[in-house]
Amino acid sequence: MAEAAYAKGLEGVVAAESEICRIDGEKGKLYYVGYSIEDLARHSNFEETTYLLLYGRLPSREEMEGFSGRMRSSRDLVPEILDMVRNFPRDAHPMELLQSVISYLSGYVRHKIQHSATCNCRDTLHQVVQLASVVAAWHRFHQDREYVPPRLDLSHGANFLYMIRGEEPDEYEGRVMDACLVLHAEHGFNASTFTARVVASTMSTCYSSISAAIGSLYGSLHGGANEKVMAMVEQIGGSDRAAQWVNRALDEKQKVMGMGHRVYKAKDPRAIIMEEFLLELSRRKNDTRYYDILKEVERAFRERMEEKGKPIYPNVDFFSGAVYNLLGIPKVLFTPIFAMSRVSGWLAHILEQRRDNRIYRPKSLYVGSAPREWTALEHR
Amino acid sequence: MAEAAYAKGLEGVVAAESEICRIDGEKGKLYYVGYSIEDLARHSNFEETTYLLLYGRLPSREEMEGFSGRMRSSRDLVPEILDMVRNFPRDAHPMELLQSVISYLSGYVRHKIQHSATCNCRDTLHQVVQLASVVAAWHRFHQDREYVPPRLDLSHGANFLYMIRGEEPDEYEGRVMDACLVLHAEHGFNASTFTARVVASTMSTCYSSISAAIGSLYGSLHGGANEKVMAMVEQIGGSDRAAQWVNRALDEKQKVMGMGHRVYKAKDPRAIIMEEFLLELSRRKNDTRYYDILKEVERAFRERMEEKGKPIYPNVDFFSGAVYNLLGIPKVLFTPIFAMSRVSGWLAHILEQRRDNRIYRPKSLYVGSAPREWTALEHR
Repeated sequence: MAEAAYAKGLEGVVAAESEICRIDGEKGKLYYVGYSIEDLARHSNFEETTYLLLYGRLPSREEMEGFSGRMRSSRDLVPEILDMVRNFPRDAHPMELLQSVISYLSGYVRHKIQHSATCNCRDTLHQVVQLASVVAAWHRFHQDREYVPPRLDLSHGANFLYMIRGEEPDEYEGRVMDACLVLHAEHGFNASTFTARVVASTMSTCYSSISAAIGSLYGSLHGGANEKVMAMVEQIGGSDRAAQWVNRALDEKQKVMGMGHRVYKAKDPRAIIMEEFLLELSRRKNDTRYYDILKEVERAFRERMEEKGKPIYPNVDFFSGAVYNLLGIPKVLFTPIFAMSRVSGWLAHILEQRRDNRIYRPKSLYVGSAPREWTALEHR
Repeated sequence: MAEAAYAKGLEGVVAAESEICRIDGEKGKLYYVGYSIEDLARHSNFEETTYLLLYGRLPSREEMEGFSGRMRSSRDLVPEILDMVRNFPRDAHPMELLQSVISYLSGYVRHKIQHSATCNCRDTLHQVVQLASVVAAWHRFHQDREYVPPRLDLSHGANFLYMIRGEEPDEYEGRVMDACLVLHAEHGFNASTFTARVVASTMSTCYSSISAAIGSLYGSLHGGANEKVMAMVEQIGGSDRAAQWVNRALDEKQKVMGMGHRVYKAKDPRAIIMEEFLLELSRRKNDTRYYDILKEVERAFRERMEEKGKPIYPNVDFFSGAVYNLLGIPKVLFTPIFAMSRVSGWLAHILEQRRDNRIYRPKSLYVGSAPREWTALEHR
């Protein structure tokens, strides 16, 4: 095709106004509805952050109790959905299962079908909560173990670890898992969030819209970076080999995963928090191997970049894979966990889209064949 | 929110180049890859049209035989998917089931997961063909009847009627059903096709992308118009009451469904073909009631519009519902049938997107709160 006379991938094109997320890439700052990611990671939890995203303000104690109760009571899976999870072919990726379950689930939840702008999508929270239960159930079945029904006294993150392990995680692990969900809950427009809004703009249901967004996140250009970082760390094997590995990769013009970010010119603020979690978890578990490798990769990378006068910093994916690894989570679950978290942001964007909706219907430029005559099969 | 300083809904924004579909709205012409919809409806069939859309040219006899064989051998459903269809709550809409099945199906098909631009998506055609089988199975279970396994000697349209009824349709019915699928297979950019391309642009699978597109089509602003036309026809009840109904509707500024089209300023060429099918089917079945009502609605509507000097013509949805009704298909299946057909266009767009890809990542304009201080729960 000819050189594009339009913005390919809609790059630089404004698609909507939004009140949800502010990213200050120059200063390395991220805000959800005005609150800094540092404050949210330190003081909030995934349930409260979800409330903030869906309602645009922090809840009172009473509101928080009601909302948390609704989230927790939505955790358990119906038998038909457990069957879907159990029957999903073992060698297939759980992201397509997750995408499938969320639209299927719609039929099981007493919710108003959202063919209108007004909605009760914040009242029934299965579409947010059950992603974690499905991911945990898939993991258990994949390990030839039984489904662990949810506990209602644990935070969203701690309960996820409980459903994965069948044992209650210690308090710090639960807090880290929950904070990781806070860190990934929202990040402005990106392909999956945009997908959720495009589907929502037809006045389809939030289940349909979230399912579609999961499909986008599955794409290798979108999710999956932290999986690749962990694969790199495993390949390097030890911190003494990290510098050599980085130098060879850069000499061969290979991409070093987890470095740099399209939006952040300064350090990704989530990476700073994630690094703290990784260091503390590594100390508590007496296993700093991954931390040491990553820090050595970062150092060697920075050294090379400084020669070029081009500072590039680690992003959140650089540290998150190692954190999940120390929490006992296999790589195949990293992108599903991203979905478990980002679903809160997706739902916030779906609700915002509905409040001031116009269906997304861009144009295309026809560059194909001129009209041509029909040829019968026997003359081809 | 303030008046938009950008194109809301991306209206008028070019999102991509495309070689697939040309619509000449002024002249009322529609072409798939250069071939007119009249030629396709008259000479082609759904399988050949699908080949045309996926390969960008008409097949030779040998290519057609191979392709048709691959399509037909992909018709039957595995037991796990039949269970999903059977277990789907009776009062839920089949569109969310359809969306769910297509991503689930991915795990069952031996296909390369498409995290790259090269692909074998034209070799395994379950993602195109099984929509018809799922819709038919859902209908059978919904009627408390058994699943009818597909016949491989029938066209795609005739086999669908067979799987719905458990009896072979007559030759003309099969031909009309198949031609209806041809008529709806492609229509350029629209919200569902755009959704398919956005998801595909992340290098997700064609199953994920098609599933997402089904979610968009479910939205009441996108699919569903022919359902509403049939509801109108049933409400009018007889052709002698049509003029009065139209006049009252227009006096009350109600929308008359199936009239006018965003793109076509002349007659929608598909409507002309669909009207012929409706007339012929009505004659053969000795039942011209719906045809008579529709023609009277059209006449009364035109009379009113001529007073205003504003010609507005019926679109394809105006006649298609009545055609499906005469074929024994209930209203709830109209939008799922739209998906069964449009899936060919979606897959064509997915393949085209991958050939010259850039991930869709538009910007948003932040209009929310300035950074604000954290407030502890006890002070809210």
